[in-house]
Amino acid sequence: MKNNTPQDKGKSGLHWRGRLWLEGEEGTFLGYGRVVLLERIREYGSLAQAARSMEMSYKHAWDLLASMNRQAGCRLVETSRGGKSGGGARLTVTGERAITVFWQYHARFQDVLQEMTAKLGEVLCGDPGEEL
Amino acid sequence: MKNNTPQDKGKSGLHWRGRLWLEGEEGTFLGYGRVVLLERIREYGSLAQAARSMEMSYKHAWDLLASMNRQAGCRLVETSRGGKSGGGARLTVTGERAITVFWQYHARFQDVLQEMTAKLGEVLCGDPGEEL
Repeated sequence: MKNNTPQDKGKSGLHWRGRLWLEGEEGTFLGYGRVVLLERIREYGSLAQAARSMEMSYKHAWDLLASMNRQAGCRLVETSRGGKSGGGARLTVTGERAITVFWQYHARFQDVLQEMTAKLGEVLCGDPGEEL
Repeated sequence: MKNNTPQDKGKSGLHWRGRLWLEGEEGTFLGYGRVVLLERIREYGSLAQAARSMEMSYKHAWDLLASMNRQAGCRLVETSRGGKSGGGARLTVTGERAITVFWQYHARFQDVLQEMTAKLGEVLCGDPGEEL
């Protein structure tokens, strides 16, 4: 008798996990780290401060942003030059949307992993003769 | 009008990618590398040869296998001691099942990523004013 009820869930304590990123022609377009960078730019209004808060060099943050802009085909962040402090930075509508979209798909992705885990119960150690 | 037709696919060349692994109390139980190790053990009938074919130390392969056995609660590979050559090794039913299950869920996982990509078309650069 087939029985896929949730009673089997976590039988062995095993669960599916995963990482998700959005890839373009250059490689990663948007992953966890880039999304956090965008969120920090929104929080601080400054690429330099956002980078510093993540212990990332300004150059690296700038390169990540340039890579996102190129691959999106439009700007995710508007920057203004402002001398030593590095000027101001604010997210465009596309930048805001990138954050929203990433977390939206990330949530869907986590749901799928949970669904996969719920189905996993019976797959291992079905044969008592194999027990340790 | 809502319109989620595939015509939007690949508009920006962006696509979702991901990595999948099965986690237990110790951390990873089964991921891409461990599954390939099991497949090589099946191919060579020897843990030592399987490890060598992956440029992995025998100790590391043995540790991975011990970790899998502990977390599964049963053996994935049966080994027999055999002097210098390291003895023979063959997959148990659970070992075979682990390979099958991993690729089965991996395929489902890839399908989900494709479905997510197909829905992605409209999310970026919707505002012409933002174009580079």
